[in-house]
Formats: sequence, structure tokens, C-alpha cells
Amino acid sequence: MVAQLECIDKLRHVCRMQQHMVSTFTFDHLALQRGGQLRPVMLAYETWGTLNAEADNVILVTHALTGNSHAHDVENPDDPKAAWWNPLIGPGRYFDTERYFIVCANVIGGCSGSTGPTSVDPRTGHPYGMRFPVITIRDMVHAQRRLLEHLGVRHLAMVAGGSIGGQQALEWAVTYPEFIDKVIVVAASAALTAQAIAFNEVGRQTIMADPAWQCGDYTPGQGPLTGLAIARMLAMITYQSEETMEQRFARKATQREYVSSPTFFPDLGGRFDVENYLYYQGNSLTRRFDANSYLYLSRAMDLYDVSEGYPSIEDALRRIRSKMLFVGIRSDFLFPPAHVRWLAEKVSAQGGDAQYVELDSPHGHDAFLKDWSLMIDALQLI
Amino acid sequence: MVAQLECIDKLRHVCRMQQHMVSTFTFDHLALQRGGQLRPVMLAYETWGTLNAEADNVILVTHALTGNSHAHDVENPDDPKAAWWNPLIGPGRYFDTERYFIVCANVIGGCSGSTGPTSVDPRTGHPYGMRFPVITIRDMVHAQRRLLEHLGVRHLAMVAGGSIGGQQALEWAVTYPEFIDKVIVVAASAALTAQAIAFNEVGRQTIMADPAWQCGDYTPGQGPLTGLAIARMLAMITYQSEETMEQRFARKATQREYVSSPTFFPDLGGRFDVENYLYYQGNSLTRRFDANSYLYLSRAMDLYDVSEGYPSIEDALRRIRSKMLFVGIRSDFLFPPAHVRWLAEKVSAQGGDAQYVELDSPHGHDAFLKDWSLMIDALQLI
Repeated sequence: MVAQLECIDKLRHVCRMQQHMVSTFTFDHLALQRGGQLRPVMLAYETWGTLNAEADNVILVTHALTGNSHAHDVENPDDPKAAWWNPLIGPGRYFDTERYFIVCANVIGGCSGSTGPTSVDPRTGHPYGMRFPVITIRDMVHAQRRLLEHLGVRHLAMVAGGSIGGQQALEWAVTYPEFIDKVIVVAASAALTAQAIAFNEVGRQTIMADPAWQCGDYTPGQGPLTGLAIARMLAMITYQSEETMEQRFARKATQREYVSSPTFFPDLGGRFDVENYLYYQGNSLTRRFDANSYLYLSRAMDLYDVSEGYPSIEDALRRIRSKMLFVGIRSDFLFPPAHVRWLAEKVSAQGGDAQYVELDSPHGHDAFLKDWSLMIDALQLI
Repeated sequence: MVAQLECIDKLRHVCRMQQHMVSTFTFDHLALQRGGQLRPVMLAYETWGTLNAEADNVILVTHALTGNSHAHDVENPDDPKAAWWNPLIGPGRYFDTERYFIVCANVIGGCSGSTGPTSVDPRTGHPYGMRFPVITIRDMVHAQRRLLEHLGVRHLAMVAGGSIGGQQALEWAVTYPEFIDKVIVVAASAALTAQAIAFNEVGRQTIMADPAWQCGDYTPGQGPLTGLAIARMLAMITYQSEETMEQRFARKATQREYVSSPTFFPDLGGRFDVENYLYYQGNSLTRRFDANSYLYLSRAMDLYDVSEGYPSIEDALRRIRSKMLFVGIRSDFLFPPAHVRWLAEKVSAQGGDAQYVELDSPHGHDAFLKDWSLMIDALQLI
């Protein structure tokens, strides 16, 4: 029992369950889209603002792959790095905490406090590891619905998110159409492209190829740090764009402080700045994210298809009753803007109230976490 | 000595030095651009056609990263898979073996018979491994020049190649301007983008992260097959395009014969066809290519900058005297067509005779190895 508690303590350390006002809610079980169930299920979440008497002034914000519930930082509201949508949330901001009760929950499958592969499997007393079931975007949404019930929420004024968060927002619109007034889907589409699945799979293979992965049963803190760092290096390329990388790095030799590469092997003929930057990014993720969670969440991203379980995509999209805003990013090659636009047009064609707007940003997929003025302008449309 | 011979024999097996009419030429030493030297240097090469009395009817064809000297297959001239530029080479074809003496040499640093990391280092009696020096595109070209001298070639009618082969063709035009009439640079630019360097570096890290790599001192045939397969999976994405992958795979579940993934771990929630395809491609490369060669050649690709050693790129390009054809590919994101066009315009601006043509192909970087009719049309321009 002591060993188990020590293990849980280490898990907490690895996963950096943030020390902000994170609350938790545990419910008995969740039946899963691809079969099986989770039992019990804990959700770790944060809220800002106050729920009104009608319990309908609620905005649900949904986070991306390696994101977490810390979308806003009350103590550092003006630091864009203190929380992932910090400049958009707060008194008088787009997500106005004086008017709305804003909720952001860590997704199931993640490693920031909600039930995931690092959680202890009650059947064995050990972390799930790869015995964690396959989870989907729909499962994440069902779990969030349970949380909102627990919080007494009667109606959502809005759901908004980008990337996997955008997939969740879309899924909310289709699964719970009568429950939501407005939905903002940023840099997400009806389903991932073959190319994006392929990039994700390369990342997963690098993690699983690391002998420290041990089929998922690594000791917390001693996991596949090399594999995870390389997977993150690749992902960071797909979150940016050729244009931005050229502007920022081009072929400059690095002038920054040298960061060890994931494999520690000496450079072959010098080091480009872009390499040093990617080593830094890879290394950073290993300090805050769990490798098994990376496998499960990136897979949920691949598996997501809004039409799953419906006779056709038209049938799925015809269910939507919310006012929809789809935001594409001009330079995004992970979720190409043409796919986001196509989805918006498809929703309109089914009688939905959908608008499309494109961020004219060179920053690639990550523009929704960087280009604040473009984002704020776009969000005004809904 | 017996052990050493066995070792060399195994190396030959791993590297699949093709059993066609491959000849070799060994010379004493080659001073290298980034310092140091190779001593001795062997080049393995193939030729087609006959050298004329003036020794000036010569076309040098230069191969890409994992290619080799087998650009044409005399026994199977109509099989595009029997040799990498087979449909372009032969009697009456664009590279006409009835008129020209065509030469293709395996690059130094590779593993198809020319001196590379799998060669025995005469200083130690063991394979070079990572003690092989950093080599560059310019070094490859200097070595090819020595081969042509050995063959008695007095003048080149043409140099042509794609990708790294295109970098070599460009380097030939700049380094030996008076020696060549025409140069065709396909899907290559003055220098790689930051994004392309980044993709290459992820691939190299996956190889070096494989414990079987052993800092490059693996037993031939027991090297980092997992890491090399993953690196190849990633490279294959960059050789294609989002458009083609979507047309070919989209989100189809695989119907083909299952191929083991590099890590052998079971699929998470099913397998997409694109994943199975990439496993197959990764696996295939490990049977024909050496991991250390992959590191050195991909690095040579990164390091290439046509302006290196000159006061400016204009000074480098002003040296060119050959008639130049630059061929970009509309959907290539490894060597974006805008960069190829920019280079062609830059050569023209320095007074050079340069044309640019763009293949309107969806097939990405690899179009120069697939889209035969587009290629043949483009080549007619010079």
C-alpha cells in the first residue's frame, strides 16, 4: 500500500497536475464508444466566473492534445504563457468571466488529473498503462456532460476549442444539439487527413520503440523520455508552417544555449537553430506529459470522425441546432483550412447556421494559441 | 582476417550492392569540404551506351538519398520498378543510350558499393561507422569528377538528377562550369528549408535512439532496423503530398495483408491503410539500406548550400555556363516549387541560361520517379 501510494505520488509529480484551483469530480462509470467502460472516472477541472441562478451562463472551453484545464490564470491574467487561452478569458474579454461561468476540464486519457493511463486501475491496483481502453472524442464529451450535470448546469451558452478541443466542440454540437447556443470549432475538421494520421503514427512508433517504454509499464518519471521527445519534435513541425519556420530559423546555425538532443549524440557537421529549438521543445514536453497519454490522445484525434455511428455525415451534421463558427488557419497543414471550410459549408447545406472565417496567419496550426488579435477578430463573428 | 572478410561479406549482403553490371574505380584520396579526407575512395558505378571518339557524348545521372547507380535496367527496360529512371533511359528514349554514354555512380557515404560508413576504415580494419567523416554534396561531385577522368571523359553533354541528385547536378554546374553543356535540376533548390532539415533530424534521432544502433557500431544485419523503419515512414510522408495520400488512403481501414509495425505493438483501435502502407515502406528500406548511410546522406542534404565558399549566392550562380533546366513539382513540400523557381530566376538574373518548368503533379516530391509523361514533356524543354 505504501509502495502504491508512492507510485501515485510520483505519477502526480510526473503529470504536473497543476497547483491552481483544480477541482475534481468522480462518477461511477462511463460506457465507451469503442467498447468497454471506465470505472470509476475522475475529471479534474477549473472554473472562472459565477454560475447564474438560471444555470445557463456557461461556456465550456475544450483543450488540445497536450493542453490541460488551465485555460486562464487569474494570478497572471496578462501573461499569454501562464495559461493557454489567457488573453481571451477574463473580465471584459471575449470569454467574459464577469458574465459567464467558464469551465475547462482535463480530458479523460490525459495526465493532468482526469482518469487516464497513469491512473490506478482498481482491478489491479497498478496504473492502467496500455490496459487503459481506447477512448474517443465522443467519450471525452460524454464525460464532460456528466461534469456539467454535477455542476448543475442547465444550458451551455457556448462550447469553444481548437485542434482536439475543436473536435470536442464539434462533437458537442452533434451529440447534444439542444443543450448549446453557440459552438466555436477552431482548426479542426470532420475527420483527420491520411497525412495527419501518418504523422501521428510516426510519433507513436518513436515512443513505443523506446526500450524505456516497456510496453507502457514504465516507472513514472523513468518512461520513454527519448521517444516522447522525438515524437514532440515531429509534432512541433506539424503545428507550425514552412513559412514561419523559414522566417524564424531559416538555415541559421544555433546561437542559443545548446540543448541536448534526445539521443545525446554529437551533432553531424554543426547544429541548425531549428534543431536546437526542436530539442528544447521535445525535452520540455517530457517534463510535463505522460507518454502513454500521448499515445491515447493522439489516437483519439486520429479516430475521430463526426459521422461515426450515423448513416452519413449529412445525418450527423443535420442534428446541429447551435449557431456555429468554424475558424480555419491559412497556413495549417495538420487541419487544412479547406477541410474546415468544407465542414462549415456542409453544416450550412444541412440547414445549419454556420459561418467560416480564416485566420490569415503564417503560424500554422498553433495560430489559435498565438495570434491573439486575429483570434479576437474572428470570434467577434459569433 | 577471416572474421573481417565475413564482416565485409555481411555488409555486402545488407547493402545489396546490386548484381548488375556494376563496375568499381578506386582512387587514392579525396580532400573533404568540411575537413579531413577519405583514403582510399571507391566508387561503384554503372554505364549504358558507348563513349564516342571525342569522349564528349556523356550524360551523368545523379541519384537520390536511398537510390543507387541502377538508373536503368537493360534486361527489364520497360519495368519502371526495375530501375529508378528506367522509362527515361534506353535506345530512343530521352537519355538515349544509342547516342550517349550514360554514367551513374553510387554516391560516397552511401551503401551500394561506393565508400561509405559500412566500408572498412583502413586505419582500424573495422567499418567506419560514425568515424566516417562528414561528407557533402560537393564531395560527392568531386568524387564523380575523378571517376569521369578515369573513364576518359573530356566533356559532359549533360548532368541530370532529382532531389539530392538535383543538388549534385546544381553543384556540378557551379563547380565545373566549363565542363558541361546542359544541366537538369529536378525537385531541388539552392538549400533546404528549415522545415525539411527538421524532418530529416527527426528521422536521424529515431535511428540513433534505437539501442541496436550502438553509436553506429552495430553488427551488419543487426542494426537499428526499428529506428530506420520509423525514419523511412516519416520520409515517405514528406516524399508524397496531402493530396495524393488523401486520394489513395483517406481514412480507409487497411484491407491489405498486415505488415508488422516497426515496434510490433498491437494497433490502438484498428489500423488505417496509410499506417499499414508506411509500415511496409519502413520495413522494405531496412532490407536494402544502411542506417549510418542514412544519417550521413540525409545530413549532406541538409548541409548543402550552393553559396557555401563564395562571397554570395550571386557569385556562386554567376559561375554557371551550362544551359540549365529547373523542374519544380507543384505539390512538393520538401523542395517547394517556389524555391526551385526562385533559383532558376536567380540564375537568369546573373546572366545564366535558365528555364523553369513545373510538373503539375499531385504526387509530391516523388513525382520525378513516377510521373513519366510529365517528366518527359518537361525534359523536352532542354
